[in-house]
Amino acid sequence: MTRSRVMGLVLIWVMVGAWVSNAQAAADREKLLTEPGAYGTFAVFALNEEWAKQDPATRIVRLTSLKGVVEQHREHVTIDLYLLRGLSDQGDIMFRIHAAELHETQEFLLDLQSSQFGKHLKTVGIMHGLSKKPNYVPGFSDQMKADLNAVSEPGRKPYAIVIPIRKSADWWGLDQEKRAAMMQEHTAATLPYAKTVRRKLYHSSGLDDQDFITYFETSKLEDFHSLMLSLEKVQEFRHTRRIGHPIILGTMKSLDEVVELLAQ
Amino acid sequence: MTRSRVMGLVLIWVMVGAWVSNAQAAADREKLLTEPGAYGTFAVFALNEEWAKQDPATRIVRLTSLKGVVEQHREHVTIDLYLLRGLSDQGDIMFRIHAAELHETQEFLLDLQSSQFGKHLKTVGIMHGLSKKPNYVPGFSDQMKADLNAVSEPGRKPYAIVIPIRKSADWWGLDQEKRAAMMQEHTAATLPYAKTVRRKLYHSSGLDDQDFITYFETSKLEDFHSLMLSLEKVQEFRHTRRIGHPIILGTMKSLDEVVELLAQ
Amino acid sequence: MTRSRVMGLVLIWVMVGAWVSNAQAAADREKLLTEPGAYGTFAVFALNEEWAKQDPATRIVRLTSLKGVVEQHREHVTIDLYLLRGLSDQGDIMFRIHAAELHETQEFLLDLQSSQFGKHLKTVGIMHGLSKKPNYVPGFSDQMKADLNAVSEPGRKPYAIVIPIRKSADWWGLDQEKRAAMMQEHTAATLPYAKTVRRKLYHSSGLDDQDFITYFETSKLEDFHSLMLSLEKVQEFRHTRRIGHPIILGTMKSLDEVVELLAQ
Amino acid sequence: MTRSRVMGLVLIWVMVGAWVSNAQAAADREKLLTEPGAYGTFAVFALNEEWAKQDPATRIVRLTSLKGVVEQHREHVTIDLYLLRGLSDQGDIMFRIHAAELHETQEFLLDLQSSQFGKHLKTVGIMHGLSKKPNYVPGFSDQMKADLNAVSEPGRKPYAIVIPIRKSADWWGLDQEKRAAMMQEHTAATLPYAKTVRRKLYHSSGLDDQDFITYFETSKLEDFHSLMLSLEKVQEFRHTRRIGHPIILGTMKSLDEVVELLAQ
Amino acid sequence: MTRSRVMGLVLIWVMVGAWVSNAQAAADREKLLTEPGAYGTFAVFALNEEWAKQDPATRIVRLTSLKGVVEQHREHVTIDLYLLRGLSDQGDIMFRIHAAELHETQEFLLDLQSSQFGKHLKTVGIMHGLSKKPNYVPGFSDQMKADLNAVSEPGRKPYAIVIPIRKSADWWGLDQEKRAAMMQEHTAATLPYAKTVRRKLYHSSGLDDQDFITYFETSKLEDFHSLMLSLEKVQEFRHTRRIGHPIILGTMKSLDEVVELLAQ
Repeated sequence: MTRSRVMGLVLIWVMVGAWVSNAQAAADREKLLTEPGAYGTFAVFALNEEWAKQDPATRIVRLTSLKGVVEQHREHVTIDLYLLRGLSDQGDIMFRIHAAELHETQEFLLDLQSSQFGKHLKTVGIMHGLSKKPNYVPGFSDQMKADLNAVSEPGRKPYAIVIPIRKSADWWGLDQEKRAAMMQEHTAATLPYAKTVRRKLYHSSGLDDQDFITYFETSKLEDFHSLMLSLEKVQEFRHTRRIGHPIILGTMKSLDEVVELLAQ
Repeated sequence: MTRSRVMGLVLIWVMVGAWVSNAQAAADREKLLTEPGAYGTFAVFALNEEWAKQDPATRIVRLTSLKGVVEQHREHVTIDLYLLRGLSDQGDIMFRIHAAELHETQEFLLDLQSSQFGKHLKTVGIMHGLSKKPNYVPGFSDQMKADLNAVSEPGRKPYAIVIPIRKSADWWGLDQEKRAAMMQEHTAATLPYAKTVRRKLYHSSGLDDQDFITYFETSKLEDFHSLMLSLEKVQEFRHTRRIGHPIILGTMKSLDEVVELLAQ
Repeated sequence: MTRSRVMGLVLIWVMVGAWVSNAQAAADREKLLTEPGAYGTFAVFALNEEWAKQDPATRIVRLTSLKGVVEQHREHVTIDLYLLRGLSDQGDIMFRIHAAELHETQEFLLDLQSSQFGKHLKTVGIMHGLSKKPNYVPGFSDQMKADLNAVSEPGRKPYAIVIPIRKSADWWGLDQEKRAAMMQEHTAATLPYAKTVRRKLYHSSGLDDQDFITYFETSKLEDFHSLMLSLEKVQEFRHTRRIGHPIILGTMKSLDEVVELLAQ
Repeated sequence: MTRSRVMGLVLIWVMVGAWVSNAQAAADREKLLTEPGAYGTFAVFALNEEWAKQDPATRIVRLTSLKGVVEQHREHVTIDLYLLRGLSDQGDIMFRIHAAELHETQEFLLDLQSSQFGKHLKTVGIMHGLSKKPNYVPGFSDQMKADLNAVSEPGRKPYAIVIPIRKSADWWGLDQEKRAAMMQEHTAATLPYAKTVRRKLYHSSGLDDQDFITYFETSKLEDFHSLMLSLEKVQEFRHTRRIGHPIILGTMKSLDEVVELLAQ
Repeated sequence: MTRSRVMGLVLIWVMVGAWVSNAQAAADREKLLTEPGAYGTFAVFALNEEWAKQDPATRIVRLTSLKGVVEQHREHVTIDLYLLRGLSDQGDIMFRIHAAELHETQEFLLDLQSSQFGKHLKTVGIMHGLSKKPNYVPGFSDQMKADLNAVSEPGRKPYAIVIPIRKSADWWGLDQEKRAAMMQEHTAATLPYAKTVRRKLYHSSGLDDQDFITYFETSKLEDFHSLMLSLEKVQEFRHTRRIGHPIILGTMKSLDEVVELLAQ
């Protein structure tokens, strides 16, 4: 099956499907993604062995069910998609879901797994975190606050990296002042990369094995590498533990792009 | 198959089944759940790949066997059900079973696994603990005892979290007094969350790899997260080891709700 | 298939089979189980997915082959059976085999795995140890020696627990006297439970990853829990390392009981 | 099927395929392999159980698709192939891919996995690193710089070894001067083997779980062993952590050789 | 199928096969096994689930291909076979292969895996090491050298044990003199068992995750256990790390014995 014929099939069902997109949904999405108090879930799936044996027409039908489930839930949760296949050995696709309540995320993932497409998914990993107001920023200097507020360069940032971390028991035993001083050094090390590497932090203590999920987007992976190298050299790094096989690297894709790529 | 048709099928067999519910059983359940000396078992299962391939009618039949096994054993053991699918990567459903003797729990799980539904279950994890009288509370101040007895807010607490922990060898080497002082600090840190986060402790040393199973129910996950963060900051935390891939997060469901959800 | 019909089928082949039981075999068994110099092997198996799909009549036939293999080898090895299913996530059944030479154990397990029943078994874990004369007891006080010789309460002890342990490198570096003092404290902690918890020790250094296999039988799991808690509080515990997913908990069953339970 | 008949079939499709090879591609390849700023990816795959069941003719057809995908992408990425089967328990084949941007590597691996051959591949591991200018060499003595520039012996170096490493948190906390001194000692230890063991370093911090991927080629494995033994004796080794099941050992093969070997 | 009928079938093809055995091959084998500079590979395989489903005649045919591959390669590599099934949970059979160059070992294992028998093998683990001249013996006393040269008791030593070990970073940082003193203490501890436990050492640094593969043969497992216990008590043991699930215990078998056992 050629790429163009797949595209044709994709076009047909895109026209059939009703992709709701209104101003209210966009506002809700913006709020979930930027304000504190939202639950962020990272769910990694691998396609089972039977997926590779389906013919392209069947795949298109099944991928349509993926699209249907996403549409059905997007009033309550925001859904971002990432292609891990070809970059990560942990799975094929990753969903990042934001919701006001975690049961809404569960409902979306239940429907996803019950769908025709979901029957081909094996759950590799699910991690949860909570967006919160910054812990240490209030005590930073005005200059640093201003630097942190500098807008990042516009444009698409195709690469996404997810790193869950734990802090050592010693870290939590330190008083707030000492932790704040170390976090200031940590934050200063990130400033040179504020424009090219976008960051988002999720707090996980109790919700999952890690204490934090750190999430990054960039179009310049070399800058991201330099940022991570800088963060390894600050004092706070000695209290940081990565757990398991932590780093997930993928590329951000629209739902349509994922459908097209998996249809092949 | 639509959700409403599934509901119809569910209704039919609910009427056929004989769901025994009398005062004696309720009293026994209350006793097992609240008094010391009961064995608590957490059993996590994943549905096998064949489950997803069954048509809804077959699933209903198989889920009826689940209901039958639960009914048959509820005179001897209490059974709580949790839906992990969509929230945890460890499995799809979890049973919490309380029994006066562990062989009663084994008999229930043997019958479960031999049932038509059980043939689709893969055992992911089984953990055992024992409810005991509080170790350190007798030495606490009267005020703290009173605070601990304050009733938690009524109403459903849909989220449940299970965290098995080990204590360090150093911990057990400390004398009772030092451990009591640390546990008092630990307990004080939990008081602000007593109303919104319900807790239950199981002692596991020897019965399983962990020393304790800590179990939580809440409707406010953010409060639970804050509680866990507070507990990471007390001295006792330095003696706490989580083992494996410890945290299990799910939602409490009635048997009927689980049947309906898995029938889809 | 009802439980009574299964029992009927079981009865038939029990009568067909020739279950040899003479005084010599009993004496050999007693010697292997109580005297030093015997190899003890713990072999844990899980039933494969196909087992659950067999109809009861086929299962009975296959379980007959299990019985046949056990009969064939019981002149050379002693074989105890434990049901793990429903209590342990590590497997479904465990064999404890004692032999004068380990190749006899291998021959039994080879025949078991080649049997019709064995084709359904997946090997989960095999551990070996050697029974030896007590290391430290000769130096204990007469009172303690007497307490150790106190007979345990008669009667069936249905629960069995297996815990493999390693000792730290530091432990082995200590001189015999210091180790003996710590083992005396360790042994004193076990005395209150001598009547309700039966213990047996296997030495494994070199034969397997662990240094020792500790084996317990009890009808009072709560006593066993209290015993293990006491052992965590003595100095020797700081030199004890559990390895892997160590604790195996099951119930002792006769061959006939296992056959009946697995036939369902 | 005899080896010669397989060779015949291989010959036929080699003549049919159009293996582009021009000066520009060679220059690009040289640049990607030698200049800083290229992303290096190591992707390890295992053949699934179905591969062994295919008849040789079908295998040839599928292997043709492998050749097609490699040809299609070699304008953008350089691709080296290694046979792990028979030497490593981690997988059957390994690709080393160099690209200016990591999404080009992803596109190649996506097409590989979508190909007829790719349907037989299970992803075992994917690691990424970045080639960079040497960190410490500028501060080395002129003599050492000259020694490092000494050309390695010409000729094929059939063995390749890949070792991912992390540095300790302590290492990154040292100042540049101390790290440079240790790296000078490290480098001096490698000089005796510069002629027979070719080395290449990839920087991974943030891109993957490890900090570095160290890659070696040699025809004299005993020299490589001696080199690694020397490196264990320098001070820097105390800051080196290998992660997971790190060492991958294989033999470099041309695409044609891999096709011939896997066709059997 | 009875044991005797299997034996009959085995006899037939043994007569058909041409088992080459001449003085030159024996000399080469002796050299590879005793002189430094040979590569030793330990390859552990498990039989797949389909093996158990083959009828005995088919198994004989497939086992004939095993015999064929071994014959074909025995001019270049020495091959020893061990039966792990029934003693080890790591696999069913183990090959120990010695070769002057590792690619010869790879060629043998490639042909093995491509054979009709090889299609039933799953690779569990492959480890490589190099035989070298003794590191520390030259500095030992004449008496110890003499003791080390004492021939071990003749006769078959049916049990074989393989233990891969790493040395700590601290060990490698010690100067040669200190390491030699500790190795002398280590060696002295082994002398009482020189007659009943045969040892061979392989150096692996760089070739595999471990630093050494220690290999033992004995007919008296209890002596081997006592030897290992002695080695845990010397100072050098504190620098020894076992990795993974290290100990592999099996019985040495001739090719014919393995064929007969697996044919059942």
